[in-house]
Amino acid sequence: MSSYFDAIAPIRYQGPATDEALAFRHYDKDRIVLGKRMEEHLRFAVCYWHSFCWTGLDPFGSGTFERPWFEGGSPMELAKQKADAAFSFFSKLGAPYYCFHDRDVAPEGATPKESHENLLRMVDVLGEHQQRTGMKLLWGTANLFSHRRFMSGAASNPDPAIFALGALQVRDAMDATMRLGGENYVLWGGREGYETLLNTDLSREMDQLGRFLSMVVDYKHKKGFKGTILLEPKPREPSKHQYDFDSATVYGFLTRYGLEKEVKVNIEANHATLSGHSFEHEIATAAALGILGSIDMNRGDPQLGWDTDQFPHNVPEIALALYHILQAGGLGSGGLNFDAKVRRQSIDPQDLFHGHIGGMDVCAKGLLIAEQMIQDGRLQQALDQRYAGWDAPEGREILDGQLSLDQLADRTLTRNADVAPRSGRQEYLENLVNRFCVG
Amino acid sequence: MSSYFDAIAPIRYQGPATDEALAFRHYDKDRIVLGKRMEEHLRFAVCYWHSFCWTGLDPFGSGTFERPWFEGGSPMELAKQKADAAFSFFSKLGAPYYCFHDRDVAPEGATPKESHENLLRMVDVLGEHQQRTGMKLLWGTANLFSHRRFMSGAASNPDPAIFALGALQVRDAMDATMRLGGENYVLWGGREGYETLLNTDLSREMDQLGRFLSMVVDYKHKKGFKGTILLEPKPREPSKHQYDFDSATVYGFLTRYGLEKEVKVNIEANHATLSGHSFEHEIATAAALGILGSIDMNRGDPQLGWDTDQFPHNVPEIALALYHILQAGGLGSGGLNFDAKVRRQSIDPQDLFHGHIGGMDVCAKGLLIAEQMIQDGRLQQALDQRYAGWDAPEGREILDGQLSLDQLADRTLTRNADVAPRSGRQEYLENLVNRFCVG
Amino acid sequence: MSSYFDAIAPIRYQGPATDEALAFRHYDKDRIVLGKRMEEHLRFAVCYWHSFCWTGLDPFGSGTFERPWFEGGSPMELAKQKADAAFSFFSKLGAPYYCFHDRDVAPEGATPKESHENLLRMVDVLGEHQQRTGMKLLWGTANLFSHRRFMSGAASNPDPAIFALGALQVRDAMDATMRLGGENYVLWGGREGYETLLNTDLSREMDQLGRFLSMVVDYKHKKGFKGTILLEPKPREPSKHQYDFDSATVYGFLTRYGLEKEVKVNIEANHATLSGHSFEHEIATAAALGILGSIDMNRGDPQLGWDTDQFPHNVPEIALALYHILQAGGLGSGGLNFDAKVRRQSIDPQDLFHGHIGGMDVCAKGLLIAEQMIQDGRLQQALDQRYAGWDAPEGREILDGQLSLDQLADRTLTRNADVAPRSGRQEYLENLVNRFCVG
Amino acid sequence: MSSYFDAIAPIRYQGPATDEALAFRHYDKDRIVLGKRMEEHLRFAVCYWHSFCWTGLDPFGSGTFERPWFEGGSPMELAKQKADAAFSFFSKLGAPYYCFHDRDVAPEGATPKESHENLLRMVDVLGEHQQRTGMKLLWGTANLFSHRRFMSGAASNPDPAIFALGALQVRDAMDATMRLGGENYVLWGGREGYETLLNTDLSREMDQLGRFLSMVVDYKHKKGFKGTILLEPKPREPSKHQYDFDSATVYGFLTRYGLEKEVKVNIEANHATLSGHSFEHEIATAAALGILGSIDMNRGDPQLGWDTDQFPHNVPEIALALYHILQAGGLGSGGLNFDAKVRRQSIDPQDLFHGHIGGMDVCAKGLLIAEQMIQDGRLQQALDQRYAGWDAPEGREILDGQLSLDQLADRTLTRNADVAPRSGRQEYLENLVNRFCVG
Ligand SMILES: [Co+2]
Ligand SMILES: [Co+2]
Ligand SMILES: [Co+2]
Ligand SMILES: [Co+2]
Ligand SMILES: [Co+2]
Ligand SMILES: [Co+2]
Ligand SMILES: [Co+2]
Ligand SMILES: [Co+2]
Repeated sequence: MSSYFDAIAPIRYQGPATDEALAFRHYDKDRIVLGKRMEEHLRFAVCYWHSFCWTGLDPFGSGTFERPWFEGGSPMELAKQKADAAFSFFSKLGAPYYCFHDRDVAPEGATPKESHENLLRMVDVLGEHQQRTGMKLLWGTANLFSHRRFMSGAASNPDPAIFALGALQVRDAMDATMRLGGENYVLWGGREGYETLLNTDLSREMDQLGRFLSMVVDYKHKKGFKGTILLEPKPREPSKHQYDFDSATVYGFLTRYGLEKEVKVNIEANHATLSGHSFEHEIATAAALGILGSIDMNRGDPQLGWDTDQFPHNVPEIALALYHILQAGGLGSGGLNFDAKVRRQSIDPQDLFHGHIGGMDVCAKGLLIAEQMIQDGRLQQALDQRYAGWDAPEGREILDGQLSLDQLADRTLTRNADVAPRSGRQEYLENLVNRFCVG
Repeated sequence: MSSYFDAIAPIRYQGPATDEALAFRHYDKDRIVLGKRMEEHLRFAVCYWHSFCWTGLDPFGSGTFERPWFEGGSPMELAKQKADAAFSFFSKLGAPYYCFHDRDVAPEGATPKESHENLLRMVDVLGEHQQRTGMKLLWGTANLFSHRRFMSGAASNPDPAIFALGALQVRDAMDATMRLGGENYVLWGGREGYETLLNTDLSREMDQLGRFLSMVVDYKHKKGFKGTILLEPKPREPSKHQYDFDSATVYGFLTRYGLEKEVKVNIEANHATLSGHSFEHEIATAAALGILGSIDMNRGDPQLGWDTDQFPHNVPEIALALYHILQAGGLGSGGLNFDAKVRRQSIDPQDLFHGHIGGMDVCAKGLLIAEQMIQDGRLQQALDQRYAGWDAPEGREILDGQLSLDQLADRTLTRNADVAPRSGRQEYLENLVNRFCVG
Repeated sequence: MSSYFDAIAPIRYQGPATDEALAFRHYDKDRIVLGKRMEEHLRFAVCYWHSFCWTGLDPFGSGTFERPWFEGGSPMELAKQKADAAFSFFSKLGAPYYCFHDRDVAPEGATPKESHENLLRMVDVLGEHQQRTGMKLLWGTANLFSHRRFMSGAASNPDPAIFALGALQVRDAMDATMRLGGENYVLWGGREGYETLLNTDLSREMDQLGRFLSMVVDYKHKKGFKGTILLEPKPREPSKHQYDFDSATVYGFLTRYGLEKEVKVNIEANHATLSGHSFEHEIATAAALGILGSIDMNRGDPQLGWDTDQFPHNVPEIALALYHILQAGGLGSGGLNFDAKVRRQSIDPQDLFHGHIGGMDVCAKGLLIAEQMIQDGRLQQALDQRYAGWDAPEGREILDGQLSLDQLADRTLTRNADVAPRSGRQEYLENLVNRFCVG
Repeated sequence: MSSYFDAIAPIRYQGPATDEALAFRHYDKDRIVLGKRMEEHLRFAVCYWHSFCWTGLDPFGSGTFERPWFEGGSPMELAKQKADAAFSFFSKLGAPYYCFHDRDVAPEGATPKESHENLLRMVDVLGEHQQRTGMKLLWGTANLFSHRRFMSGAASNPDPAIFALGALQVRDAMDATMRLGGENYVLWGGREGYETLLNTDLSREMDQLGRFLSMVVDYKHKKGFKGTILLEPKPREPSKHQYDFDSATVYGFLTRYGLEKEVKVNIEANHATLSGHSFEHEIATAAALGILGSIDMNRGDPQLGWDTDQFPHNVPEIALALYHILQAGGLGSGGLNFDAKVRRQSIDPQDLFHGHIGGMDVCAKGLLIAEQMIQDGRLQQALDQRYAGWDAPEGREILDGQLSLDQLADRTLTRNADVAPRSGRQEYLENLVNRFCVG
């Protein structure tokens, strides 16, 4: 077994007053919140890629982390060492779920067949670790963006032979997810987009993507997979433009191919802000459109134009995000996956713990605040009162389609009265939110 | 008649060699381009609001323009003076179309009825001007964003009585458009969005907007209007978030309410870039989704986060935009409306001419370049070759839905061969574009 | 006396448990924090322009507020009514300071002389209100951006006659500030920038600005004014580019004209973020450069590219900003001016109170958190330890200039040893901050 | 000798009419422009890093290029193969200069001494290639950002021992530059910045940077190096914040440490736009401040928040940039270095040529346009007329410091006259620019 995290004892809840950095101050997994255990609300997952695969490399520099499983063995030996370390970390941290890409857990082989077999073997290894530790798989996914063959996309590739290689990986990753009891399956199309319209046919690529996703949905049903298929929106990076730009764009794409009842979105906070939206906006929009599925919990930097994938830090922001999730009825089979990485300068093993502990505590505290906002009820009441007219007869008459434009226009002309606007009370409502956030 | 533009003679085509600033150097309206007259391709419109209503006011300062029709008479008298000046300008410039909001041409009255009647009277005035000058109306629209009653939106207002006032204005503006032979009708929802989710119910507001637009479409059919109903996407400003964020978002909204065959988009260059897209992206996306309707031709400033509505200036950019429009089969009943204003410091009457002449010449030159790119054919050939595999049997088999995910995966696994990627040739294609743009 | 705020009782501290919206929950002005009264730390000011002059107008709509002092009298009568209302508001709120532009308090006259005299008269009125209420003036300033004569700048105007009109206004505004006991004088150059380099000579305009500021500094000394002269950086808006882009740019400008010991900066949170920096960055940079003077306390919207001037809302962010201010030794004669406005939809009189109460409570709570961070000391210790090497002999030898590049290079080559990097511990430090922020 | 580019014949000028893609259409090096050969104006350099070192790796994927010198030999053997390939490329392309980082040309060794010796050996190799081909070195630089030891900066590192390792590299890279006849020496501080203020002491880091740069300048003088020391501004990436944010910030930094006469800036187009400025702005600002040194010629993508380092493409934009450079008197010892890379999908050897040929042609055409704008003179005349008042007596009196604020104010009050603003004529000037750009 890996000894990389030997110095660190399992992380426990010690309450807000503790002076221990390697303890939870707010995440008390069995605490009941709105009738459910905190752990069941938050359904935290640790991602495999950032903490166990990323070397610290960025576009201007090589790796900074020196993990023991990065070199010194065959690819499969190193993959097993990595799995040991990952499950050692998971167990000590105490998050119930993890997530992975196929290529995170099993090395790319020399041929498609070898890659296929590497994954099969590693699924056995992961299954044993799950068995031993009780860890569960929130979702699996396939990496169709790192290998050079996918430089021009997978499903949207101009070459159908590369689409086919993507299909093989996704089929295998879905099989792996099902074998490991995964509760969802995610597709993120980092190269499903374009660098320049000069070499891109948007109509063709949309149709290819529609076909690919339909095949995925059909396969799910054929295999009887009960989990949710999720698309993860992101506006750009690595592509100049990525087709799954944001939740509203994904909704349009799904309706175009008749998939809006079949597929939901995995919303990442950092991707939301890259697309020019707030995190709550993406959550509330997906909820309103009926496609809210799961969350990649992290944060971006408002001054930076790329995906920094930092751990969440700002409790008031997370409280509002969780408030919207709770108001939408929760995430169902989804959860909060920390698609977050420690900074490239955070090179010590305990830094991985600090990142996750901080993130879990921020979410736990945010959940407690969201609970208060819901129990208090004034935020919802203000909303109900503001729109009350739409539940009154004339409002209903309009919404139910009983009035044509000219009927309503004529009635309005006859009435011949202006209508005074009412205050939107934004500052009052913001102060109300702070009553719960600030303590 | 207004004498504001007396010093300026009608603008004529004088060719690239002219030294005259108040002449066209490229816009030669009868020149045949790809089988049609330049004027028929470009279908230029001058907008009423920026050149004849805007005072030069910005958030930090009051008006800078001193147009004679801004003060010194009753609102209706000033409206007539403004119309005189506007048609004097239109005629001298020589663009075939204009566009207006109801409140641009007729003053808001003390009551809804008075506003209604003001508009009726001014429609007569405009009709006479059209008759006299031969000017045509590209589209009309209603201003549902300037008056304080619409501070929380019109169709998406929490108060149905304000929705009703909006319905009256739109019905009247549609009637006015029809009476004046308008070829399209536009809706831009500058306040159809939100300032904060704390006082906003997204589901309700979407449904209200869907209902409103359905009423508009029904009214169009009832009246037998043959023009196109157009939504103008814009991501934000004045709202923090505006529902018609971009073309892809509008497409999703239209499909949600079954309107995707009824309504198209009026794409504004500056709004495209505010939404994080290039102008060509918005055009190509709308074309691929089948909703490309018309263009608000202008430019933004890539360093600024608000709508500067400048005249287009960069010929290579406009050439590519027009290339995409021509490749999509043109704009049908749409056209190129200059939703553009001279800078606040450009206070002389001739500055209005310089702005429009420059814009028209930029588009004319761009059209000539786009013609060359199409006649040359190499850009399209490169695209056809790149995707050729999708027209070959395996590509078709996939796209036609004849292969399930596991069939394709198994076939790929059996083939067990990697596929080499091919160069995207972006730099070659960019150089090819410059052969046409740079002369 | 104005009765606009009659329905509102003076705002009192009632503690975090109160259910009263029109009360302070954290701002307890006499509470001792780090040895000083809260009021003395925060030195809150209310600004005249946003709450008493702004009509709710934005670039797409007219005013929404219907303040009684907006119409129904001569300009001077309305100015007096506005002053009554403003001081009624100030007194009820309980912030100790206010700030104004010359044109906020006294109307522009028909001639320079009339404007000059209007200001003189209104200074008497303001003086009486100050006497009566105990309110103090944090700073005065001159509005050199709203009138059309300043459309191309004031000090940077291409016409020296407009520079001269600006000089008159600034001299008069400085005199007014001095007569009213103002503690600072601010210059914000909203039009001191450019729209296009095509009509701009950067060298000339910089020299004009340098001259103007030197004249201001000389006048301060001549009059024996003890307050601080402050420049307020902003990167753009209304100008495309504004010369006082950010603190670092202002520092360079000051050194160019030998003014870096004479002038400091008034940092606005929203301007910081518009310039691509965090608020703390601007504070810490100004502090490091020795030019931190005062704060315009507000917030922007990270998704919007213009100045929204909202009230601060996020306590953790404000706590860190105040931590940096306290670490820098505080603001001296500066203070926290709420350059913030209620949203255009917040049209009721009490909305003005909600905005300011919320802002004051956010700052008060932030101050208490900053106090804890300082008393705890671990944040500073971590910093001291990280740089300890620079206080050791080799570090000092380098910094003191005792080693040339080749001496140090040769020594390093002889030593011939690599150096292992140490963790930056960012996540640990962020968690530590949250211990204080989250409670 | 490398055979990687064997299929490509030397690139020749063939004129605008040519149909050959691998030829220059505008870059006619001996053509006389404003009295100098085109080659002498443009002083093109090819950079070593992007075309010969970068593997196509990005944050989401591994290398896509398969250059023969990437593997299959010892590091020094590969470095020599790379140099063979690079000089084969340089010679065929026909740009007169190249640029490099120490680590581009010579591999990092196991110890500082081994790295030092690797560089010495490779300088001999490069020297022979220069001798053989006639290529010249525009500038050298040291890579102080890729190795993990520099993860927290080099000169701004909290550990002076890492500063010392940086000093060794810079001394050696300066020596290498001098031995190879380099005409400038560049410092780009990609890690000289911060990720979070929580672990950063801005004052200390600024002083460290000031000391480092002073040591560099002293060494230059000691060695009698006649070239220019250049800092390359960039606002962020890889750091969250980088100290050399933009030209104005660098100017302030230089004045702080008394170096503004010693050091100039190397302005990169893409970095300009990342900092919220246009390319011309950075050029014109640096020129006005007297620190314009050299150019990294490339382009960014206005929709993307990271450094895309694309080849320049837009002729009108480059024409204006070159106009400002020519108006500033040219670049002296500087030049136009293509800090530009082909897209990751452009994997063929000829793609490297297409990128550079396109870039050189864009600059050549831009230069011809700039020549016309200068010879025509109307742009400069418009500027001179606009500011004419400042050359008249009252303007001079003000600028020369002969009037105090109150003298000027009193004089203005006595005159008691408003001043009418004059049109900024932006649209006229933009049209005038297009007369030269559009042909
Ligand atoms: Co994610
Ligand atoms: Co991400
Ligand atoms: Co528009
Ligand atoms: Co616009
Ligand atoms: Co301010
Ligand atoms: Co502001
Ligand atoms: Co560069
Ligand atoms: Co760059």
